[in-house]
Amino acid sequence: MKSFLILTIVLSLILVSSNFAAEHGAYFDYEGYTGPGYWSQLDVKYRMCGVGQKQSPINFHTNIDYASVSPYVYMQNVNYVRMENNGHTIELSSPQWQNSFINFDSTNYYFKQVHFHTPSEHRINGIHMDLEAHFVFEDPNTKRKAVVGVLYYIDPLGTNSNFIDPIITWAPRTKGNATYNVFVDIASVFSLVREAGPNWAYRYSGSLTTPPCHESVTWWVATKQLPISATQLVFNLRVYMGFNSRPTQSRNGRTVPGY
Amino acid sequence: MKSFLILTIVLSLILVSSNFAAEHGAYFDYEGYTGPGYWSQLDVKYRMCGVGQKQSPINFHTNIDYASVSPYVYMQNVNYVRMENNGHTIELSSPQWQNSFINFDSTNYYFKQVHFHTPSEHRINGIHMDLEAHFVFEDPNTKRKAVVGVLYYIDPLGTNSNFIDPIITWAPRTKGNATYNVFVDIASVFSLVREAGPNWAYRYSGSLTTPPCHESVTWWVATKQLPISATQLVFNLRVYMGFNSRPTQSRNGRTVPGY
Repeated sequence: MKSFLILTIVLSLILVSSNFAAEHGAYFDYEGYTGPGYWSQLDVKYRMCGVGQKQSPINFHTNIDYASVSPYVYMQNVNYVRMENNGHTIELSSPQWQNSFINFDSTNYYFKQVHFHTPSEHRINGIHMDLEAHFVFEDPNTKRKAVVGVLYYIDPLGTNSNFIDPIITWAPRTKGNATYNVFVDIASVFSLVREAGPNWAYRYSGSLTTPPCHESVTWWVATKQLPISATQLVFNLRVYMGFNSRPTQSRNGRTVPGY
Repeated sequence: MKSFLILTIVLSLILVSSNFAAEHGAYFDYEGYTGPGYWSQLDVKYRMCGVGQKQSPINFHTNIDYASVSPYVYMQNVNYVRMENNGHTIELSSPQWQNSFINFDSTNYYFKQVHFHTPSEHRINGIHMDLEAHFVFEDPNTKRKAVVGVLYYIDPLGTNSNFIDPIITWAPRTKGNATYNVFVDIASVFSLVREAGPNWAYRYSGSLTTPPCHESVTWWVATKQLPISATQLVFNLRVYMGFNSRPTQSRNGRTVPGY
């Protein structure tokens, strides 16, 4: 009877923990045996991280990669926002963003959240920038994702990013989340990158840059990089997140000479 | 006779190219199929990159890692220096450095060269810095290496590094090398990091952070980080090198809770 009870408890614990893994996926991070080189072995659901053929991020070569006709943008600023530090990144979402969207290929992709990577995941001619913001959009019908990537460099003039400013003030320094009545000027980011013209972004078909590394993500990486101050990045944002940049993937579908 | 000639030419070419690989090792870089995750498969001599048990770089946890009694330092400034851009990094060497050395465990390690990685390879509490200088020393008897790692962060005040300044002015922007009569203030770097006290560096036993990833390197990573300006790094040094930072390795020899 006693051994049956113990067996029941043990089995329940296994079920609970496997259920947890099934829902949330195995723990991953950016170093050693739980780092990017091992993601595909951590969880059966992370298989694409190892065998995918259209994985992100990639390196753009400005002599052969050209910006495509880029999405129509409708982004609204908000004054009510949830900020989460999940231990890997800081992520912002808001019910007030439900009507913000981008449109390309005659499809509306609605804005879900924005999060950050440091240093940048995408590279230009092999050179990384200091920060990359990922604006994640989704087609409600197909659930297909589109992500706009904006790269930031530390500006010698110390120009602060208006968009980043409230995030530094309010985002949790360690794991946790909270919702604030605070203004977030997200529209300014899109105004700035669109100054590059109607072809303001590199388009390619890629993946999520974190497990489960699902493919069929349409990427739009802005050709114009934006300034951020060293105070905002070095002493604040990157301290809250740590290094969270996946290594550059091969472009399997494309032949790039000398690449 | 003709086919014998062709065979001879083909065999000679194979011999020449395999000799080249044997001497220089296979090409490697920091992305896709020639990136860090594949280094060990690129060349039989790079095997340690995959199976080594004391690989570098690592992440230091300031709550459990403490600086050790650090080397005695004798570093001379020079006014004659060779600067090489090898496509991965910029490396400085000089015959005038032959008498510069560090001493620990009753052994002199003589200074051979200094080169750079961006962003930093070693991390502190999971956070990367913007640049890491590797000062490479060697014991002439055993050929064992000791490397002093110094991490730089982009300073909001825009403080220039005196040491980095002539490198930005004179180092080749692309592959190549040249020798200059130029003053390099290397002693100042060691003066600054030694301000942390007699225990000015974390000591551990690791490896080269590039192929062939040989182990038995004694690492000394300075606990004090130094400032560099965004102008020096973002607009200059990292543009000459691109991203060249190996992912953080596991610390196989050590048990680190929650690591």
